[in-house]
Amino acid sequence: MSPPPTRIGYLGPPGSFAHEAVRGLPGEHVAAASVAAALAAVRAGEVDAALVPFENSIEGSVAGTLDELGELSAAPLHIAAEVLLSVHFALLGRPGTTLDSVTTVATHPHAEAQCRVWLAAHLPGAEVVLAASTSTAARDVAAGRYDAAVGSPAAKAVYGLAVLQPDVADSPGAVTRFVLVRRPGPPPAPTGADRTTLVLYERDDHPGVLLEMLTEFALRGVNLTRLESRPTGAGLGRYCFSLDCDGHLADARVGEALVALRRICAEVRFCGSYPRADGAQAFVRPGVADADFAAAQGWLASLRTLGQ
Amino acid sequence: MSPPPTRIGYLGPPGSFAHEAVRGLPGEHVAAASVAAALAAVRAGEVDAALVPFENSIEGSVAGTLDELGELSAAPLHIAAEVLLSVHFALLGRPGTTLDSVTTVATHPHAEAQCRVWLAAHLPGAEVVLAASTSTAARDVAAGRYDAAVGSPAAKAVYGLAVLQPDVADSPGAVTRFVLVRRPGPPPAPTGADRTTLVLYERDDHPGVLLEMLTEFALRGVNLTRLESRPTGAGLGRYCFSLDCDGHLADARVGEALVALRRICAEVRFCGSYPRADGAQAFVRPGVADADFAAAQGWLASLRTLGQ
Amino acid sequence: MSPPPTRIGYLGPPGSFAHEAVRGLPGEHVAAASVAAALAAVRAGEVDAALVPFENSIEGSVAGTLDELGELSAAPLHIAAEVLLSVHFALLGRPGTTLDSVTTVATHPHAEAQCRVWLAAHLPGAEVVLAASTSTAARDVAAGRYDAAVGSPAAKAVYGLAVLQPDVADSPGAVTRFVLVRRPGPPPAPTGADRTTLVLYERDDHPGVLLEMLTEFALRGVNLTRLESRPTGAGLGRYCFSLDCDGHLADARVGEALVALRRICAEVRFCGSYPRADGAQAFVRPGVADADFAAAQGWLASLRTLGQ
Amino acid sequence: MSPPPTRIGYLGPPGSFAHEAVRGLPGEHVAAASVAAALAAVRAGEVDAALVPFENSIEGSVAGTLDELGELSAAPLHIAAEVLLSVHFALLGRPGTTLDSVTTVATHPHAEAQCRVWLAAHLPGAEVVLAASTSTAARDVAAGRYDAAVGSPAAKAVYGLAVLQPDVADSPGAVTRFVLVRRPGPPPAPTGADRTTLVLYERDDHPGVLLEMLTEFALRGVNLTRLESRPTGAGLGRYCFSLDCDGHLADARVGEALVALRRICAEVRFCGSYPRADGAQAFVRPGVADADFAAAQGWLASLRTLGQ
Repeated sequence: MSPPPTRIGYLGPPGSFAHEAVRGLPGEHVAAASVAAALAAVRAGEVDAALVPFENSIEGSVAGTLDELGELSAAPLHIAAEVLLSVHFALLGRPGTTLDSVTTVATHPHAEAQCRVWLAAHLPGAEVVLAASTSTAARDVAAGRYDAAVGSPAAKAVYGLAVLQPDVADSPGAVTRFVLVRRPGPPPAPTGADRTTLVLYERDDHPGVLLEMLTEFALRGVNLTRLESRPTGAGLGRYCFSLDCDGHLADARVGEALVALRRICAEVRFCGSYPRADGAQAFVRPGVADADFAAAQGWLASLRTLGQ
Repeated sequence: MSPPPTRIGYLGPPGSFAHEAVRGLPGEHVAAASVAAALAAVRAGEVDAALVPFENSIEGSVAGTLDELGELSAAPLHIAAEVLLSVHFALLGRPGTTLDSVTTVATHPHAEAQCRVWLAAHLPGAEVVLAASTSTAARDVAAGRYDAAVGSPAAKAVYGLAVLQPDVADSPGAVTRFVLVRRPGPPPAPTGADRTTLVLYERDDHPGVLLEMLTEFALRGVNLTRLESRPTGAGLGRYCFSLDCDGHLADARVGEALVALRRICAEVRFCGSYPRADGAQAFVRPGVADADFAAAQGWLASLRTLGQ
Repeated sequence: MSPPPTRIGYLGPPGSFAHEAVRGLPGEHVAAASVAAALAAVRAGEVDAALVPFENSIEGSVAGTLDELGELSAAPLHIAAEVLLSVHFALLGRPGTTLDSVTTVATHPHAEAQCRVWLAAHLPGAEVVLAASTSTAARDVAAGRYDAAVGSPAAKAVYGLAVLQPDVADSPGAVTRFVLVRRPGPPPAPTGADRTTLVLYERDDHPGVLLEMLTEFALRGVNLTRLESRPTGAGLGRYCFSLDCDGHLADARVGEALVALRRICAEVRFCGSYPRADGAQAFVRPGVADADFAAAQGWLASLRTLGQ
Repeated sequence: MSPPPTRIGYLGPPGSFAHEAVRGLPGEHVAAASVAAALAAVRAGEVDAALVPFENSIEGSVAGTLDELGELSAAPLHIAAEVLLSVHFALLGRPGTTLDSVTTVATHPHAEAQCRVWLAAHLPGAEVVLAASTSTAARDVAAGRYDAAVGSPAAKAVYGLAVLQPDVADSPGAVTRFVLVRRPGPPPAPTGADRTTLVLYERDDHPGVLLEMLTEFALRGVNLTRLESRPTGAGLGRYCFSLDCDGHLADARVGEALVALRRICAEVRFCGSYPRADGAQAFVRPGVADADFAAAQGWLASLRTLGQ
């Protein structure tokens, strides 16, 4: 893997979940106002990389991140690493605030969606105000604009708030996957526990194209771990596909699948091969290991030149 | 189709895009505070149906609507109709407001995403505040809380606002698809230009299950028009699939595909067969028309009893 | 199963392997001069059924039998049962004949192919003459026309011959599968260990039609146990497909596959569902048992009428 | 293509259809007693090549030729060219013979199968005797052993016979495909109108293996023109697959399919890439031309080293 970046953007302001996640990465951490701003700073070379949320086990994918990575009119970006963060939503207020005095609660729409039942049950009379991020909401609470915020416990120290209630998520155990995004460069070396992210654009919108794409993976024993359709902007019913698969572009089975997709798709946007945060080794079924490809290709080369 | 509902909820408050879309439906229109609230009112029998946003040609699916329809622990709901609305975002302000005096702009996150470039170019200094809906934003502008709102031109009349700028979307031509959701009942009669919405839960998370599901559609000539993965909440990498296909559950090819999916999936949530708003007739390739199924089934029945 | 036929034709003359195989079937046994003659007698009602060779574990299928069953211009015939016979080739001669005095050996081309190495090694100077059947060859030896015949040990008693050498096959363990063919009628009841024989004619000769046919079986968990292409007579490269699958046309998974094939093929010739001679129970994977189909069809029927 | 062989074996004796076919090939023509003998002479280096029948549009494949080419325990052989011959069956007799004096007719089993109806109609009382080849039959007629032979009109001159009836085939228009077989060597250069012959052995006898093999061809747009199952000799229900596909092993799409088959099969026996006798250019669909593979592989190579 290339040397660790020294300036890393993250979805701020400080006290966000992204801030909590970026702490494990060495370097200087620079808050950005939005995912778009964080990735624009990477593209412009203002930071070496940016850590942005990619998907959440409850709320699903972060559309803005997916769309920025797949946008064909923008410079390509690659994922170089991923970070998993267990998400604990706390209700934060200024010190001294009591639950029954809360009349306004600010938070990000994703957090609101994950704590809706708790808020309705415990703060039925409070107005819920949406904010650009949970840390913006905490900052606004510190500034006295709202009574409470739903956000990361990390925001407590940043903004001098108190935790009014520690775990207010409707479903415990939520996990957010963040990805470290940088400008393209030689990929990190394969580890045996890698993931590859792609965005595929269909050549035509005929029935069966997605089936054909999936078959290219399946035949080569490449397991998909995520598949999302996203609108291309060309009209309802026109989609591209954002996906993750097991393995690394240096693996023979992944490389041949990429070649196949490149042949059948209008466009393949490669978004990086990188180590899985959970370290799970890819299952490589018999016949698709690098050695199997090498042996078969050697056989073919000999047939082509010598006839046997 | 069943008699038209007389009380129809919609994602309010008045002046929202949903409000604009619901105007074409006969009956009394009742604003709801959120998609969840609108659908809860349907489940509770407080309204006969609700019109909620389903997907947008730029922003993609509305996660909250998809998740409500697919939620296995809640009572099933069916889509009975769909409405397409061309979305025109206007910048609205109190009468007399000029562009260069705008310092705060409120809007819904989806609208913000679709007008981001315009806002950055024309109101570079303005703070963008997120709101629960574009009509909430318009209401807050009318109340003097913010200077301007990005929302539906329909909000102009409802809140006594002026249009400061008529079309502020970064990409013109956006379309939102709304769906009319009601409690389950006998489906509307097939029209030849129908759509069916399903949510599929895999039996196991083994490679190739999605491929198998798609093959069940493809073999019977049933065209998919939308496919989304959504987290099931059981952890990262655990998804269900929300999809639309051409055709009606009364069609033989769709019915047999449903039977196959029911056999191979852990759960199939049927979310309705209903007329397409664009009236596009399904393409039925040779061999999969109702008459083809009937002839082949007649042949089998005769073989089974008479041997020929 | 229908009452056992009382007159059964077989590929004669007496002393043939078919004669050996037919002995296990109750009724009167009638020798026919050829497979075609045996099946013509069934079609004409002169016999109730005929036992004819279908395939051999060394030589492969018996083209004449396959083509007679698949011939679209002739009346359909059904297989009602199968018989497996271990084939032991003996060298037969008139009593007193010694190996070194043999200068001519008569036999059927299939037997010749299976004993070619033995004959070349042990009777290098002998002329090998082809005959219409191994029993014809034995009869001709008895008549003094040739010195020896390769055929069934059963021919010994029929023609008063001696066994010069008991096992002259190049590969021991050959098995021939015979089928009992009759005019179409209600199929025998399913036993759980059944086989179904079909001949499929493609609608067009486009790439992928065979793939589509095989997918119809695979998706429903129906295992193919034999697949042969046979020329249709319409020119080189024009084939139909003769195949066996596990299961019975009364099984839901087989029935639905038959309906699908009937829809996509130009012609499906059903050639019978009948008990396997080896009694091997079909493996029925989860999701394709009759109960799975019944449950899923009940669910669909309820959805279609009640909406849930 | 390599220099033309100078000694070419063929399935004799002189006057056979193979003799008729071999006349178009420059070199010395050497009759062999059987397909096995012709191919053994190639393996032993006694001839440079051999022309043997491969399939007939009426009778199907020649099992002996298929099995010799696929036999894993024997040295590999490659097809270097193919010859198509329109087959006209003549009834031959000694000069002066009249139809109504014919009481015995000799011929090869394949010829007998193709003229059965004519013989039954016009020579109902004649005994039909099987011979090792149609030219053997003609030779035996010349020797006075039988009254007439069904065979190639070419046998007339060779054996001094008369044509009693010129066209006695039940279906006119039969074509036999002969293949020129030699020891392995560098394959002939691709012409754009090539064919490749393979024999595939399954790794396990599980459902769906054949489906997987066919999918490897279909995904890469490689059209199959022949597919035969042949018993492996390991018992009933154990098969290998003999097939022809469009294209040449030097073509990228064929090469990648070969690599895939080699990975998933227990054994792949390559039996040659050679020009089609009919000169039909392979249809190469968009995305699978050599240039498509080269472009996609160049893209992958750049991604792997530079990241873009």
